[in-house]
Amino acid sequence: MINYPIKKKTTTPASDVVEKKTPKYKNAIMANKGMNLEGLLNDSNEYYRANDIAVIYKKPIPIQIVKVDYPSRNKAVIKEAYYKIPSTTDYNGVYKGRYIDFEAKENKNKTSFPLQNVHPHQVEHLKKIALHGGIGFLIVYWIHTNEFFLYPIEKFAPHFDLYLGDGRKSIVYEDFLKEAYLIKEKYMPRLDFLSVVDEYLLK
Amino acid sequence: MINYPIKKKTTTPASDVVEKKTPKYKNAIMANKGMNLEGLLNDSNEYYRANDIAVIYKKPIPIQIVKVDYPSRNKAVIKEAYYKIPSTTDYNGVYKGRYIDFEAKENKNKTSFPLQNVHPHQVEHLKKIALHGGIGFLIVYWIHTNEFFLYPIEKFAPHFDLYLGDGRKSIVYEDFLKEAYLIKEKYMPRLDFLSVVDEYLLK
Repeated sequence: MINYPIKKKTTTPASDVVEKKTPKYKNAIMANKGMNLEGLLNDSNEYYRANDIAVIYKKPIPIQIVKVDYPSRNKAVIKEAYYKIPSTTDYNGVYKGRYIDFEAKENKNKTSFPLQNVHPHQVEHLKKIALHGGIGFLIVYWIHTNEFFLYPIEKFAPHFDLYLGDGRKSIVYEDFLKEAYLIKEKYMPRLDFLSVVDEYLLK
Repeated sequence: MINYPIKKKTTTPASDVVEKKTPKYKNAIMANKGMNLEGLLNDSNEYYRANDIAVIYKKPIPIQIVKVDYPSRNKAVIKEAYYKIPSTTDYNGVYKGRYIDFEAKENKNKTSFPLQNVHPHQVEHLKKIALHGGIGFLIVYWIHTNEFFLYPIEKFAPHFDLYLGDGRKSIVYEDFLKEAYLIKEKYMPRLDFLSVVDEYLLK
């Protein structure tokens, strides 16, 4: 169980909380479309499901429930609960029989992606996925350039291992250009990351 | 968002709530071992992960968060939330590169398994999984006989479709013997359902 870093002491509607990890950036083109990375990915996954292309879902946020009230016979209200550290990644599913698993991150920096954005157990999880023949990657959204990259775990993990061993704390933009794949924005689906999987990872 | 059926009006510790779906049955052999179906599956999955056999997790319970308090700078307490209907199944992961997805159910009846135990959208989800080349099934624990069956979705779905079309509301035990596969209890892992997948579904 963890305590998320928080700004204020007041009671806040949940919508704020849910969007904490993926805020809407006013200056990015995304904002004009009224959509953040999570929204884009959910839309794309919905499109993939509706068109029988793949079945991929975002996993629920893991919650530790401590107290539940029953104000009436068939109503349960959770009155005390805490966020837990996710043991895995945000998204998984099936595509062409293969297991797909990925984590989505936004990057506010201009020249590099800080690796502290990623939990060590998420990288460990994705490495295991690759070990078992699944397709594991990160999707990183560079807010300032409005670019979406698919970073295969096989290429990402070495950077992360160096970082854990007190090496460089971030991945520079040039490495994204070399090792990751740019996801083109389309009309339908908006973020067609499976075309990248087709082109590079299933070859 | 749904309201789960509940017995009492008092505030209850969460452990009661979590175990609502998988109570410990005093008369079953399982109870002697102090473990319910969910516990058995979690243990088996942990064994599979620790021994690099497969990576399978139980998904978090989906919760609709309405209100969050921040009693101190880095502490978030969820003060109002509700259970949501899960849109998919309980477990998924990767095994030998293949996508695996299943739902676990306990059966208290003696002669048949009532199909109202299963949500229509869960069956729809598992049918989609099969369509996309994944391995989808149900694990049903017959409490009275202390037997665990793996029911492939391809065999299960026709029963469910008949039920939705006002046909038979349950699957009789004899059909389990004909169409499902008995999972033998072992020492490690306790519920080795992947050996059934190996023997029958990956052939």
